[in-house]
Amino acid sequence: MNMNEIIAKKRDGDILSPEEIEYFVKGYTNEEIPDYQISALLMAIFIQGMNHDETLALTKSMLNSGDTVDLSEIPGIKVDKHSTGGIGDKTTIIVAPIAAACGVPIAKMSGRGLGFTGGTVDKLESIPGFQTILKSEQFMEQVRKIGISVIGQSANIAPADKKIYALRDVTATVENLSLITSSIMSKKLASGSDAIVLDVKCGRGAFAETEEQASMLAGMMVEIGNAAGKRTIAAVTDMNNPLGRAVGNSVEIIEAIETLKGQGPEDISELSVILAGLMIFCGGVAATAEEGKGLAKEAIKSGRALRKFGEFITAQGGNPEIIYDYSLFKQPKIKRLITTDRSGYVASIDAKAIGISSQLAGGGRTKKEDTIDLSAGIYLFKKINEYVEKGEAIAEVFGDNEQGVQSAVKIISEAYEMSFEKVQEKPLIKKIIE
Amino acid sequence: MNMNEIIAKKRDGDILSPEEIEYFVKGYTNEEIPDYQISALLMAIFIQGMNHDETLALTKSMLNSGDTVDLSEIPGIKVDKHSTGGIGDKTTIIVAPIAAACGVPIAKMSGRGLGFTGGTVDKLESIPGFQTILKSEQFMEQVRKIGISVIGQSANIAPADKKIYALRDVTATVENLSLITSSIMSKKLASGSDAIVLDVKCGRGAFAETEEQASMLAGMMVEIGNAAGKRTIAAVTDMNNPLGRAVGNSVEIIEAIETLKGQGPEDISELSVILAGLMIFCGGVAATAEEGKGLAKEAIKSGRALRKFGEFITAQGGNPEIIYDYSLFKQPKIKRLITTDRSGYVASIDAKAIGISSQLAGGGRTKKEDTIDLSAGIYLFKKINEYVEKGEAIAEVFGDNEQGVQSAVKIISEAYEMSFEKVQEKPLIKKIIE
Repeated sequence: MNMNEIIAKKRDGDILSPEEIEYFVKGYTNEEIPDYQISALLMAIFIQGMNHDETLALTKSMLNSGDTVDLSEIPGIKVDKHSTGGIGDKTTIIVAPIAAACGVPIAKMSGRGLGFTGGTVDKLESIPGFQTILKSEQFMEQVRKIGISVIGQSANIAPADKKIYALRDVTATVENLSLITSSIMSKKLASGSDAIVLDVKCGRGAFAETEEQASMLAGMMVEIGNAAGKRTIAAVTDMNNPLGRAVGNSVEIIEAIETLKGQGPEDISELSVILAGLMIFCGGVAATAEEGKGLAKEAIKSGRALRKFGEFITAQGGNPEIIYDYSLFKQPKIKRLITTDRSGYVASIDAKAIGISSQLAGGGRTKKEDTIDLSAGIYLFKKINEYVEKGEAIAEVFGDNEQGVQSAVKIISEAYEMSFEKVQEKPLIKKIIE
Repeated sequence: MNMNEIIAKKRDGDILSPEEIEYFVKGYTNEEIPDYQISALLMAIFIQGMNHDETLALTKSMLNSGDTVDLSEIPGIKVDKHSTGGIGDKTTIIVAPIAAACGVPIAKMSGRGLGFTGGTVDKLESIPGFQTILKSEQFMEQVRKIGISVIGQSANIAPADKKIYALRDVTATVENLSLITSSIMSKKLASGSDAIVLDVKCGRGAFAETEEQASMLAGMMVEIGNAAGKRTIAAVTDMNNPLGRAVGNSVEIIEAIETLKGQGPEDISELSVILAGLMIFCGGVAATAEEGKGLAKEAIKSGRALRKFGEFITAQGGNPEIIYDYSLFKQPKIKRLITTDRSGYVASIDAKAIGISSQLAGGGRTKKEDTIDLSAGIYLFKKINEYVEKGEAIAEVFGDNEQGVQSAVKIISEAYEMSFEKVQEKPLIKKIIE
């Protein structure tokens, strides 16, 4: 096989065979094929597209480029969950204990974040003592014993995707459905769970701006997941406004705890029981997604989900007392309130701007090497259709760095749009695709 | 300016500004922009295309990336000539002395070949003693004195094109009209002549397989040349069959001499007087191309073109006696005749196969570092519509290397197609575009 010919084939809009796809994925991972040939091919793929079979082959080749996790020793249907990324999205931390409390084993490996906030692993590390690095046997043993463990990704999962993604990032070839699908699904499929629940965001704060784009992406991921032999369901959900009121790391853990206590913001509470319901359904514990949602609500109401979260924290070395005493979290040096100069209803909050503020305040990484200030973040007192009096506080910024906090304050002031009347709210859940 | 944004713009089919084009050409030449970004951009350009203004801007940016030659000290309208490359194409060696003999100053810098045979400079070096490296003053002085000099390219002409071409070659982005046009024209425009005559080939042995493709390429090059302020004319000519009977280096010089003596093969003789006629017309010596052609014929008939060739050889240190004594050329160790096993008319000769044979026999380079065997090559006794008796020789291979000659013999045997009847011949000159 010849790389020039493979590039030319895709350039001319032809379909690549699984063997050709395997050839370039393997060659690039082994550093036998140079960057410049792969970037030319990626651009050809971006413009000419890939069909179902090509996307599946690319996903499989990337998944096979590294280690795959074997969870077969753990009894039951293990269910994984993935979100395409939203501002204030702390649902994994909520749905994992809910699903586990309902008997669905959660054996999850999660990444660190590069962006507005940390990833799930970073957020969990804001809990004093919490360990996210466990030996493989410890991890398996914990899931068998208490039904839940979430750790950092230590295995060499889909190294081809890591290399290809880094190249896409600097060659304007990120936003392509097939490339996004294969990137996400190769990692999910390598992680060993039996079923996958996807939360595909659409709106200003997400990759897919429109519901149509998000539905196409969700549909493609579901197709590829099922074709690869894992039951896959996706929810397409709104991401025009930040999810919940907290954006950051420890502030998001606190909001997750509030939600598990049944006191969370409406949007995050609703999304959590729907996603947990899908996981409970996929895990074979409920006969329908609706029944799963009912079980999820019940797990919160009864306090079982919160207790499971406490067990989970304890098992991984964290201090479970934080559940009832938020002062045990590291406290930020600076807290700055943001007030408005006019009265009215909040018409919209630019989710992306809130994300950038969180990052500027110290809550997110811009480079892989950056350390995150786990106490930094944003809290939104006012959300859509809430009334604000002139001079009232709409949000608060936390952080240790004065300059970062100041920049965040400025951006947040401009992220709020006000109106004299209430606006029509968009439904949070657009559709379920399976 | 940001490279990722430039790539995304072209990826989405938008038009790049001259500033954006200058940015990436300069950045790549200075090694500030990496290969992988340029190759992604080249693929986007390949698929989405470039319009006239973009192609002109790319040509100018590449031309300005290195040295430009100043021929203004030489009086008269200096005319350059370029061929897109054909098998057995030795026309430069014929038309240069014809045009010079008619009073058109020829101050030509030529490249070495990478491919089936050497380039013009390599071919000239098969003349014993001939020097292709002259100091700039010597070169100018020779043109002023005898009206003709052809030397190797020593100046740093269009280094951006050199880098970009090398990248295109390994990323399946060679065959694009705008990229080909800017590559050729940036070098021609940097070489200092006042007018340019282009010979754009079409057919099996050329980049452009069809007359339509070749006409589009010719049209674009003529447009860009004229837009850049140099009078440019193109002839679109057939390249389905090898030009003349000789393919190689010294064998092509001998055929060029035969043509200057008025004894050359019909195709090469006809093409030479037409191209020389265009040069004489562009050089302001004739009022029309037709009148130029007449002057070119007259220069051959009178012997002035041949005498000019002799002066040219002498001026550059070569032995002019080779004009009358071909045994003065280095002789090949091996000469191998190829015969046919059946009678009939030659219906076609695969030009590309003949080119490959020449290279295998030792007459061309595969890598830049290779040395060429200047006596290696092919001579075709039989061409289209010539009758062959079973057992008669159709061609002869020359070379020093037994294995190479054997491979060439095998390929040539298969390159001939025979027929019971004569075939319809295609016209050599398809059209003139100005």
